[in-house]
Amino acid sequence: MDFLEIAVEQARLGLSEGGVPVGAALVADGQVLGAGRNRRVQEGSVIRHGETDALERAGRRPARVYRRATMYTTLSPCAMCTGAILLYEIPRVVIGENRTFMGREDLLLAHGVEVVVADSAECRSLMAAFIERWPEVWNEDIGQPS
Amino acid sequence: MDFLEIAVEQARLGLSEGGVPVGAALVADGQVLGAGRNRRVQEGSVIRHGETDALERAGRRPARVYRRATMYTTLSPCAMCTGAILLYEIPRVVIGENRTFMGREDLLLAHGVEVVVADSAECRSLMAAFIERWPEVWNEDIGQPS
Repeated sequence: MDFLEIAVEQARLGLSEGGVPVGAALVADGQVLGAGRNRRVQEGSVIRHGETDALERAGRRPARVYRRATMYTTLSPCAMCTGAILLYEIPRVVIGENRTFMGREDLLLAHGVEVVVADSAECRSLMAAFIERWPEVWNEDIGQPS
Repeated sequence: MDFLEIAVEQARLGLSEGGVPVGAALVADGQVLGAGRNRRVQEGSVIRHGETDALERAGRRPARVYRRATMYTTLSPCAMCTGAILLYEIPRVVIGENRTFMGREDLLLAHGVEVVVADSAECRSLMAAFIERWPEVWNEDIGQPS
């Protein structure tokens, strides 16, 4: 099963809602524990990025579950989402693309996290569609001035 | 005004709810933009730590506001909360204590964030009371096995 596709489906849903099209899925033992997407526009959230929303939807889990999980995300994880991955010691991250935005893969790698980048054209295209229309929301989402 | 007291009040509230007693307040231009507390027990949240809850309650803000803000928190920020502070480029963090748990102050400092540690006896005492009673919840909150 291509779990990245679960994350991409979340990103597509996000775009259809007018939201930042980043989706994610937390997977362990071949099961999707939680899938989520950026909720800045939809819920006015400043902490629900794809990855953190997926973690939240996965609910409370023992440390041992996170430590055998993979986080699938359509976009390179920002500092906050990187920190969440490090907090829970998730050992592997599969990233749709990092050309639109290079997050803190350096920190993931420095902490021994396995990082796989798919360089997905669809992930890039979802982001391009959003940024063309709402550049100021995208900047806000990554803490940058417009 | 002692804004750390706003964070401590949130931590006290958290303990009274049976929750992890970490509170935080995001302050800019002498105004509290948002105050929050850890919600793991109260809402089953794995992403609402004191600092992220304060950010969420402060709502969507332009980058320039975060960049002149201070995050007050009763406990040294974990990797996730450190990442959130770095994402939004919050330049100053005031910490109640870091003896119970040393978060990623190293990362904050490495990114030029000003870090002030108050070494508050009350902050330590709130954590001690919680950890004595619910050590497994505290371990879960920092991604550690019990």
